[in-house]
Amino acid sequence: MSAIPKDLKLRTAELKEESTRPFPGSRKVYVTGSREDIRVPMRAVSQHETPALFGVESNPDIYIYDTSGPYTDPEAEIDLTRGLPALRAAWIAERGDTEELSGPTSEYGRKRLEDERLDGLRFDNRRKPLRAKPGHNVSQMHYAKKGIITPEMEFVAIRENMKRAELADSNLGHQHPGQSFGAAIPAEITPEFVRDEVARGRAIIPNNINHPESEPMAIGRNFLVKINANMGTSAVTSSIAEEVEKMVWSARWGGDTIMDLSTGKNIHETREWIIRNSPVPVGTVPIYQALEKVNGEAEALTWEIFRDTLIEQAEQGVDYFTIHAGVRLPYVPMTAKRRTGIVSRGGSIMAKWCLAHHRESFLYEHFEEICEIMKAYDVAFSLGDGLRPGSIEDANDEAQFAELETLGELTQIAWERDCQVMIEGPGHVPMQLIKENMDKQLEHCGEAPFYTLGPLTTDIAPGYDHITSGIGAAMIGWYGTAMLCYVTPKEHLGLPNREDVREGIITYRIAAHAADLAKGHPGAQIRDNALSKARFEFRWEDQFNLGLDPEKAREYHDETLPKDSAKVAHFCSMCGPKFCSMRISQEVREYADEKGLNDAEQALEEGMKEKAEEFRETGGDLYRKA
Amino acid sequence: MSAIPKDLKLRTAELKEESTRPFPGSRKVYVTGSREDIRVPMRAVSQHETPALFGVESNPDIYIYDTSGPYTDPEAEIDLTRGLPALRAAWIAERGDTEELSGPTSEYGRKRLEDERLDGLRFDNRRKPLRAKPGHNVSQMHYAKKGIITPEMEFVAIRENMKRAELADSNLGHQHPGQSFGAAIPAEITPEFVRDEVARGRAIIPNNINHPESEPMAIGRNFLVKINANMGTSAVTSSIAEEVEKMVWSARWGGDTIMDLSTGKNIHETREWIIRNSPVPVGTVPIYQALEKVNGEAEALTWEIFRDTLIEQAEQGVDYFTIHAGVRLPYVPMTAKRRTGIVSRGGSIMAKWCLAHHRESFLYEHFEEICEIMKAYDVAFSLGDGLRPGSIEDANDEAQFAELETLGELTQIAWERDCQVMIEGPGHVPMQLIKENMDKQLEHCGEAPFYTLGPLTTDIAPGYDHITSGIGAAMIGWYGTAMLCYVTPKEHLGLPNREDVREGIITYRIAAHAADLAKGHPGAQIRDNALSKARFEFRWEDQFNLGLDPEKAREYHDETLPKDSAKVAHFCSMCGPKFCSMRISQEVREYADEKGLNDAEQALEEGMKEKAEEFRETGGDLYRKA
Repeated sequence: MSAIPKDLKLRTAELKEESTRPFPGSRKVYVTGSREDIRVPMRAVSQHETPALFGVESNPDIYIYDTSGPYTDPEAEIDLTRGLPALRAAWIAERGDTEELSGPTSEYGRKRLEDERLDGLRFDNRRKPLRAKPGHNVSQMHYAKKGIITPEMEFVAIRENMKRAELADSNLGHQHPGQSFGAAIPAEITPEFVRDEVARGRAIIPNNINHPESEPMAIGRNFLVKINANMGTSAVTSSIAEEVEKMVWSARWGGDTIMDLSTGKNIHETREWIIRNSPVPVGTVPIYQALEKVNGEAEALTWEIFRDTLIEQAEQGVDYFTIHAGVRLPYVPMTAKRRTGIVSRGGSIMAKWCLAHHRESFLYEHFEEICEIMKAYDVAFSLGDGLRPGSIEDANDEAQFAELETLGELTQIAWERDCQVMIEGPGHVPMQLIKENMDKQLEHCGEAPFYTLGPLTTDIAPGYDHITSGIGAAMIGWYGTAMLCYVTPKEHLGLPNREDVREGIITYRIAAHAADLAKGHPGAQIRDNALSKARFEFRWEDQFNLGLDPEKAREYHDETLPKDSAKVAHFCSMCGPKFCSMRISQEVREYADEKGLNDAEQALEEGMKEKAEEFRETGGDLYRKA
Repeated sequence: MSAIPKDLKLRTAELKEESTRPFPGSRKVYVTGSREDIRVPMRAVSQHETPALFGVESNPDIYIYDTSGPYTDPEAEIDLTRGLPALRAAWIAERGDTEELSGPTSEYGRKRLEDERLDGLRFDNRRKPLRAKPGHNVSQMHYAKKGIITPEMEFVAIRENMKRAELADSNLGHQHPGQSFGAAIPAEITPEFVRDEVARGRAIIPNNINHPESEPMAIGRNFLVKINANMGTSAVTSSIAEEVEKMVWSARWGGDTIMDLSTGKNIHETREWIIRNSPVPVGTVPIYQALEKVNGEAEALTWEIFRDTLIEQAEQGVDYFTIHAGVRLPYVPMTAKRRTGIVSRGGSIMAKWCLAHHRESFLYEHFEEICEIMKAYDVAFSLGDGLRPGSIEDANDEAQFAELETLGELTQIAWERDCQVMIEGPGHVPMQLIKENMDKQLEHCGEAPFYTLGPLTTDIAPGYDHITSGIGAAMIGWYGTAMLCYVTPKEHLGLPNREDVREGIITYRIAAHAADLAKGHPGAQIRDNALSKARFEFRWEDQFNLGLDPEKAREYHDETLPKDSAKVAHFCSMCGPKFCSMRISQEVREYADEKGLNDAEQALEEGMKEKAEEFRETGGDLYRKA
């Protein structure tokens, strides 16, 4: 990305149709809150009638948590060169505790703005940055502690409920009791509940005042489990246009947040394009950019350069920062005997700095000053696990848990300043050691939301680490992790392409949902029940549309039975038309209904006594009249 | 498959190169047992030296459990029209308890043999079937109970150990303690241990005397977790040639057994081709073929037809039969109120039969006669879970557990007759309800091996059910399940193609291995440790070759960094050449070595005291001289 192509803006302005087309059988709906400008997006999946064979009945719309933003709304006018509407701008302004700056206050931000060579690359429709007025704190935690329910909190409450109350009493509402390991999820999420969770630090709403385009969402163990998708240019490949497209693509498939891990030359400008167009919170690892500024020489990093980077990014609107302040000098030698040393980039940068200077980490020493910046823009902390294990062998070792304890201390310091905090976790951990990670995190970090990378449950499957880690992610989500950072099939091997991102996100949506079900999250089972009902009734289209990836489900089905008639066939490709277990189940059901059989004893008695030749005669046509 | 193509045999005789080429960096080795004809195959992966940057050292061969049979042995002469060598024939003959029959004793087997129209389809190089002499029992359990260690048992012992003793004291032998939930896995598997496990019914060795081509393997909770891959023609698609190829393909990627679930016209002949060429045990569901024989009319099934089918298949060499003898009449109405009724094909066939006749299942009533057939050929029971849940909502219900209790009763009946037994399990189960399945199975079925389909942990991801189920499979494997039946991405949607089979198998190898690690199976972590060491030392080729799918890992790597030089680059595509956390870890290690730093206090002290300008100067070339 050394040369800036002249048509970059034009190319960036075009999104692929496959990134924005509405999902089949779905429509975008908005649920209005206590005021007109709280409009919470959801995706309503409509269903067909139950076919006659199973007794005609209508099937309700199913509401799905929708991260895709305006991109899937046919009514929305998308212009990437202008960015998304600033839906939260009024809420921020109303609070009267911010001031508009004349321009970037970071040295680097100003320098980039003044550089005319970057004109061809720059996002033009910028707003002036906001900052808390002197003496003010604009974090959601600060408001929450004061007892204020912000519009953001109400938005989150409506969003989390997914209109489940509408179906609670229907036969789709049946759900197994969960095992929540101490989580405390109410039957209905109220705005007050959101406030209380944010106030006590058990949830965060990552919402930088300079990213008013984002749709508020919460990360916390008493909310739906969220997932993050990483993306970013690297020195080796990728471009701005690709990155913006990837963000939209990621939000489409269900990424709740993205992390921009770019390390190339123009990351400042790339980031602006991404944030201005992102409906989901954006996280970064500022140390990556700080390192760029010192030409990749970790030992040349200084607190001043890092501080300027924080301000630069906070004024662009980054919603959370990964900060590896727990990588303390005394912990670094603990990693020397590891199988795979330090595998976190941020962790190894700081380790190198500490060793080169023989000093305690400047992140640790300046942590309180970092808090002051975070609260002036409401950037949430994602306290990085720089010493996470990079192999099964290194799981749960001294270095990892020493750092975790430090993250707990730092959480208290941040909370004292009303800064929002989540804690990053591993990594590579065999299944029997996963729960210890969650237990120690809860113990040391006061229930601050846990945000883990997988964990990968074995090292032996390069090319399939979305799966090795999806297993661990589902389990740690069940145990209480609030957000799962996805892993793609290219992990350890290369940079993910579009299909890898989609595969990683769907895998993690599976893990998150499996965790919600296992915790007993109210209403989580509605979608499973609806999809299974559709499957049983051979409503193929509904089965596809209710799934996490309707397009792939349809494509797979069509490979075996490509004709449209097969979509209304009362058999599936596994058994063929002659024999079908679903059909037989329906016959069992009809028989039991007819005989009024409800229990085993009765069935045995009835069954032995009579003959029912007519039963053999039952059964309708194999195909429904389309 | 109505017409038999003239060139079928020729086409069947050809395997694709990609199904048989040796794995890169690997060689086939055979470990000889107490007698020359016990030659246990393994795959030895050789490794490169550690590069200078990390301190040159040689890295040992890693032995991998090898299910691929002679197909990956460059020395083996493969001729599908002749079948594999009968490696167990002498062992069977030596025992002197079998007799060679003049031909098939089943009516159907004779009829097919006499039908000239099938000549073009028939496998020619058939052996005459064997059967136990009158009054004899040829099951491995029978020998085991008598205290006899068969060559099959010794073969299994050698195979399970994977030469791990060689590495036990190396630094690759480090392993986390497991949590085995009551499994009792010894540090070394001895032939006597295998005998004892088989004798007490805690493991089975599925080894029909008419399938002497198979390489013995064990299924039991104190052995490595195994996986099964399903395949089969259906009325809709597929052909014999494809099925044989799929079997070889499945064994290549790590399927420990296959189940042939064919339902088409020529399943008898297809099965012969598969078994004669299969190095892994073959399972079937005989009721499927019995149903074909009565033109798909479940109510027309009779004990006589079923019995004839058992004998037909036993004389071909099927190693285990799924028999749904637990679907009793009184349980059928329990499924009427389910979300998805009965989803097992075998279960629904039997349910339909029971209802149509208002009689108890003929499988249940004739179970002792079935045992007599099983022990005459050593076919193992796989007691089918015909009432397994087909949706999250139906998990762990009355019908499912009623059937499980019956399977426990039947296990005792089979064991009294020295028949080998495993128990099939679900299905669709949310995470919090998985363990109850394992606990109840252990309780009711006396530790007979559990063999589960997944379970799928959510219903909402058609197109990704290898992943929804891989999560559940890893967990239930950890809890004690002995064999995991794979699920492909096409589950619920269509028939799997080659790539789906590969994806399903690798997913399940991941689940099985993650379970072995979590149980603390001795030596299980060696491969993880070796692969992670290779990864840390930038031995890219070794990292690929030690993985479950070396070809895909290499392909993914090449997408980002296609040049061969990148395979010896000391950076990966994630971070690029400028900054690399692995490199920094190595610097940490060197630093700690140099300073003799072993603990945190010391590090802090040393670190604060001195400057080490030279540290900043260290670091070699980014590229190793290739």
